[in-house]
Amino acid sequence: MQNVDEDTITQIVLARHAEATDPRLKQIMTSVVQHLHAFARDVQLTEEEWFKGIQFLTDVGHITDDKRQEFILLSDTLGLSMLVTALNNRKPMGCTESTVFGPFFVENAPQYQNGDDVANGAKGEPCFVTGRITGLGGEPVPNARIEVWQADSDGFYDVQYEGATHNHGRGMLRSLADGSFHFKSVTAESYPIPHDGPVGRMLNALGRHPWRPAHLHFMIDAPGYERLITHVFRSGDQYLDSDAVFGVRSSLVADWRRHETGRAPDGTQIDTPYSTLDFTFVLNRASATVESRAA
Amino acid sequence: MQNVDEDTITQIVLARHAEATDPRLKQIMTSVVQHLHAFARDVQLTEEEWFKGIQFLTDVGHITDDKRQEFILLSDTLGLSMLVTALNNRKPMGCTESTVFGPFFVENAPQYQNGDDVANGAKGEPCFVTGRITGLGGEPVPNARIEVWQADSDGFYDVQYEGATHNHGRGMLRSLADGSFHFKSVTAESYPIPHDGPVGRMLNALGRHPWRPAHLHFMIDAPGYERLITHVFRSGDQYLDSDAVFGVRSSLVADWRRHETGRAPDGTQIDTPYSTLDFTFVLNRASATVESRAA
Ligand SMILES: [Fe+2]
Ligand SMILES: [Fe+2]
Repeated sequence: MQNVDEDTITQIVLARHAEATDPRLKQIMTSVVQHLHAFARDVQLTEEEWFKGIQFLTDVGHITDDKRQEFILLSDTLGLSMLVTALNNRKPMGCTESTVFGPFFVENAPQYQNGDDVANGAKGEPCFVTGRITGLGGEPVPNARIEVWQADSDGFYDVQYEGATHNHGRGMLRSLADGSFHFKSVTAESYPIPHDGPVGRMLNALGRHPWRPAHLHFMIDAPGYERLITHVFRSGDQYLDSDAVFGVRSSLVADWRRHETGRAPDGTQIDTPYSTLDFTFVLNRASATVESRAA
Repeated sequence: MQNVDEDTITQIVLARHAEATDPRLKQIMTSVVQHLHAFARDVQLTEEEWFKGIQFLTDVGHITDDKRQEFILLSDTLGLSMLVTALNNRKPMGCTESTVFGPFFVENAPQYQNGDDVANGAKGEPCFVTGRITGLGGEPVPNARIEVWQADSDGFYDVQYEGATHNHGRGMLRSLADGSFHFKSVTAESYPIPHDGPVGRMLNALGRHPWRPAHLHFMIDAPGYERLITHVFRSGDQYLDSDAVFGVRSSLVADWRRHETGRAPDGTQIDTPYSTLDFTFVLNRASATVESRAA
């Protein structure tokens, strides 16, 4: 009979998975067990610490609901989300890099025309965004589907408000024949991730703040190209070097230029300060595998 | 500015914990991050797999409540609980080994005298248990506090029944002057761990069964000795080599002797088959640290 002890247990657990029919699941669970056990051995985890961990995960589970995903927040704040994003979105030099998706995307956002105001009532200083979608050779990508979403100047996404209609500061538009697009919104500001739960307590215990540098989310789809999920980050933000979710890539930082009152890019007279942002997104060609799968 | 990518992210996350004031928390979270990231790299975790993992943990969190602890079940079935038990209960040769605590212990179980029936109505074939509590030199340990708990013949602990009174098949008694104890209960039978939730689905996907070999739980406390949390396992059980929670240590296996009708060990005439079990528990001396802490 097997004698389970601290030296034999890992191999005994792994051997128990011999009957697993899905080879990929078996591979993943083998690695989970090896790393989980190695962690406990490395730190010589005490029974009290183990129980604190159980309680922490229980708290993370109990605060999670349809609107709040504390496990994603945990993955984000431990850098796992960004690592998985990086592992799965290797691209040739010159392509726009990917970053974390985040929890605030909403399906079926309103459709807008170029020039429209996607803020749709979201609080903040006006911002005029212009950009282009191109391929790696600089060729314009017309009719690309562009999803954009952002927080308001109080640092909240529409979905974070009680009874939200989910339509502020987000929308879908398409690039024009020359690959360009433009819309109006509000100036992105830094905001803290939700930190009134167990992940917030964890950050606090680790001496970490919950802030993300100001950014605008984009998801761009066009036939023949890989989907791009990314942010544009606002240069000069004090949290660029300490993003709570580790999403900043230097190639994604751009200037939000401040302007005083005057004639706005859309030709209207504007009597408050506003900002302008211009950014070019370079898409990677879809690989043959992906194209044939899509066909 | 830092550029976060798949090569730099782990060091960037770890550096973020530089301000942590609790050195033990910092050590633990350093190891968590290293192993979490190494796991994702080892298996080249896809974004879809990552999301399945998030959903799995969410399901584990949502089924967990006051009565059901699915995170403990997850830890148990991945061998983590048993590993932590083994790491924290190293003992000199000759001492009774520890095994997992399990989720079914209840505080303030009824107090019994030696000879009493702790089944208290739990279903099953009668079982007469005798035993001794000794130190490593064989010296008797009188007045040790002995907590015992077990499932009934349907494989359920009292707390698993709707509206349970929590008083069946569990109790506290004390060893006599010669270190001995004896009580009546029901014969332990193998039972499946709760497997109608996400952990059950995981076991199924891995080709694993949810059964535990028949066992009786003990927790024994006596001044001057280390607390012992263990089981006695029933020899011959078909699941001894495949305990769903990896708790079996060969030194903890004992015979439940079957008897036909006749005169039971308590002197009464018994007209159904019954079993007898005898087991000696050898306690480890408490270390000086533990003794002075308790003083
Ligand atoms: Fe965001
Ligand atoms: Fe049990």
